[in-house]
Amino acid sequence: MSAIPAASPEIAPPDLALAERLFDALARRTRRGRGIERDTYGAGEQAAHDIVSEAAAAVGLEVAVDAIGNLTLTLPGRDRAAPGVIVGSHLDSVPQGGNFDGAAGVLAGLAALAGMRAAGVVPPFDIGVMAIRGEESAWFDIAYIGSLAAFGKLDPTCLDVRRFDTNLTLAATLAAQGFAPEAIRTHRRLLDPARVRAYLELHIEQGPVLVHAGLPAAAVTGIRGCRRFRNAVCVGRYGHSGALPRQFRQDAVAATVALLHHMQGEWLRQEAAGADLVLTSGEFTTDPEQHGPSKVAGHTRFVLDIRSLSDTTMDAVADVARDAAIRIGEEYRVRFDLGATSDSPPALMDPRLVAGFDQDFTMASGAGHDAAVFAQAGVPSGMIFVRNEHGSHNPDEAMALADFAVATRALSALLQDFPF
Amino acid sequence: MSAIPAASPEIAPPDLALAERLFDALARRTRRGRGIERDTYGAGEQAAHDIVSEAAAAVGLEVAVDAIGNLTLTLPGRDRAAPGVIVGSHLDSVPQGGNFDGAAGVLAGLAALAGMRAAGVVPPFDIGVMAIRGEESAWFDIAYIGSLAAFGKLDPTCLDVRRFDTNLTLAATLAAQGFAPEAIRTHRRLLDPARVRAYLELHIEQGPVLVHAGLPAAAVTGIRGCRRFRNAVCVGRYGHSGALPRQFRQDAVAATVALLHHMQGEWLRQEAAGADLVLTSGEFTTDPEQHGPSKVAGHTRFVLDIRSLSDTTMDAVADVARDAAIRIGEEYRVRFDLGATSDSPPALMDPRLVAGFDQDFTMASGAGHDAAVFAQAGVPSGMIFVRNEHGSHNPDEAMALADFAVATRALSALLQDFPF
Repeated sequence: MSAIPAASPEIAPPDLALAERLFDALARRTRRGRGIERDTYGAGEQAAHDIVSEAAAAVGLEVAVDAIGNLTLTLPGRDRAAPGVIVGSHLDSVPQGGNFDGAAGVLAGLAALAGMRAAGVVPPFDIGVMAIRGEESAWFDIAYIGSLAAFGKLDPTCLDVRRFDTNLTLAATLAAQGFAPEAIRTHRRLLDPARVRAYLELHIEQGPVLVHAGLPAAAVTGIRGCRRFRNAVCVGRYGHSGALPRQFRQDAVAATVALLHHMQGEWLRQEAAGADLVLTSGEFTTDPEQHGPSKVAGHTRFVLDIRSLSDTTMDAVADVARDAAIRIGEEYRVRFDLGATSDSPPALMDPRLVAGFDQDFTMASGAGHDAAVFAQAGVPSGMIFVRNEHGSHNPDEAMALADFAVATRALSALLQDFPF
Repeated sequence: MSAIPAASPEIAPPDLALAERLFDALARRTRRGRGIERDTYGAGEQAAHDIVSEAAAAVGLEVAVDAIGNLTLTLPGRDRAAPGVIVGSHLDSVPQGGNFDGAAGVLAGLAALAGMRAAGVVPPFDIGVMAIRGEESAWFDIAYIGSLAAFGKLDPTCLDVRRFDTNLTLAATLAAQGFAPEAIRTHRRLLDPARVRAYLELHIEQGPVLVHAGLPAAAVTGIRGCRRFRNAVCVGRYGHSGALPRQFRQDAVAATVALLHHMQGEWLRQEAAGADLVLTSGEFTTDPEQHGPSKVAGHTRFVLDIRSLSDTTMDAVADVARDAAIRIGEEYRVRFDLGATSDSPPALMDPRLVAGFDQDFTMASGAGHDAAVFAQAGVPSGMIFVRNEHGSHNPDEAMALADFAVATRALSALLQDFPF
């Protein structure tokens, strides 16, 4: 299946057995019911950090934790003053997630450095594996907490955001874990982008493209940005389902259906025009306290998630949604409140690193990754995707270790034959 | 506003002051939070029965309770062997309902009989006011429990249905109240339709037609039947909202939106063809345990409620829904399971009674009523609607007592000058 040549003899192979043991340890420690739960700044994420940290120390890497909990495991280079390379990813997961999203990238980096260290390879500059905190927005409704905070770029108002389940603010959660919320409040830079030669990230593909293409891995060309209406609502009026003629209805479900149908049409129009776009409404609920089988619904809440490699496309589609909400709101005698979008910009990968992974196949990343934060901070960045069945953010994600091995060997080879 | 002439001198006026006192007593006893809750075969419905029963006894009516709890208050006629007239309605409400849906009909009948009794009027045949149990389907997901059971027509499997909140079966709930579930199990007829000359029901209008028409009351021509897909589901597959290309998605929200949008179009087509129809999806939810803002939804649950005066129209629309579910299911790579419909047939009112209410305006009833069960049992039936703001099945229903007086006088006049 793989078009990738076997590692050349002068390249130290990654310690894949170590990675396999650590995948097992993570699954054992952080399984909850059917899924994996490594909650952002919670017991699950910390358990994963502990497992990785102990393993890195055992193979002789330097271990450091920054003020907000990002963990870096370093193989020292010949010139320790030279800007180093960071191989990063995250160890948190969504609620009821899978074992590979995030963790694969950290374990790939660790396997590469452990292999180099065992073979006595000393790179020309430091190479650090960074386990970045809080990449998933599921817990605090904030994405990329760890990477944004490392660059002093996390909006301090995020400190007041509460975790959906514990209801504790990010500030209180950080403090309870012994970290320093004031680093975020004062925009303290924990990582100088000028000191980072490049950032590399291995991640499972979160869609089925590689499965359908029959390929174990792909180099990533860029990461889609996002405009997300996270808590859109439609306010109509409850009424009797049998007795309310159509012309008097203020039906929140009918209006929301009309809006989302219009947006599906917009997706098809953008696709036909060649634009890169995905559009999703993953949450849609009438109010369980008020709805009923014989009632016209007076309220809906829904998400509208817009992603593209192009800011222009995302802004245009968000405007289409806002305009349609006004027009359809009038037509159905309801009021939409889409709220503000939570935004993340798209990010292009560095062409030298796209080429450096030496893959036959390249593709856009539909999901966001910390690599986007590094790229936007001016750090040349690259990503490699590993084939993965059943998507991610669910308990069924399935990455074959053989595919992980292909991608980790490509990562390790790039680290040992770096283009700049 | 009213086109109704003042009651002629020989007609005993209804005791509207009694009705007003009883509306107040009902509201005081059965208010819960913002709304009214008279739960089917629960403390709320029983409290209402107690209030009405005591008031009827106080004005000298005969009081009887049948084996499953229906209450009848009788003004004896000259010929007690002759088939009598029943004025009926229900005293239960939906959760967080209003004070007038159901109760207005019982209190109108009671006011009419109290007025006749006070004036010494002895009708040619018995006139009974029947407070019918369990008309609302909200509690047991069974409509018309009391009237269907009175005619021995309630499906005995209903005895195993559990109340959504208490989780007790109908059988257990009846037994706990001292009633006889075996009457339902053995199809025992508690009321012989041949012994009922006619059935009359006053009810608040549950839509805004009379408000917009500027009229206090209307005679009802017929009651829409219902085909309801009560627990329809769409099963797709969860996935990452950014990383899953459109052609690989199994998006349950997108598919359900497509289905419901198609059904809205079907409504417009039926309307344009002159058919009587209302179509509602009052419940629509992704799974709160599984959905997420960055996930494609793998599951939805929704209601589709189809109502018309025509069985043919309802069956045709239900077939359109089933066909569309198959076609859209294939198109979106999901599976719809609409389940069976819960059905109630439409019912036409007796033209002599439609005319007998002597109203300038007639209209169809969009909501179901016990009158439909009486009509389907072969009893000539008639209904009168009272203007009501803000619809029903909600805490804001608002019926002016002046409008109630107009309709109650029309009911009382019909009882005292009966056409057959």
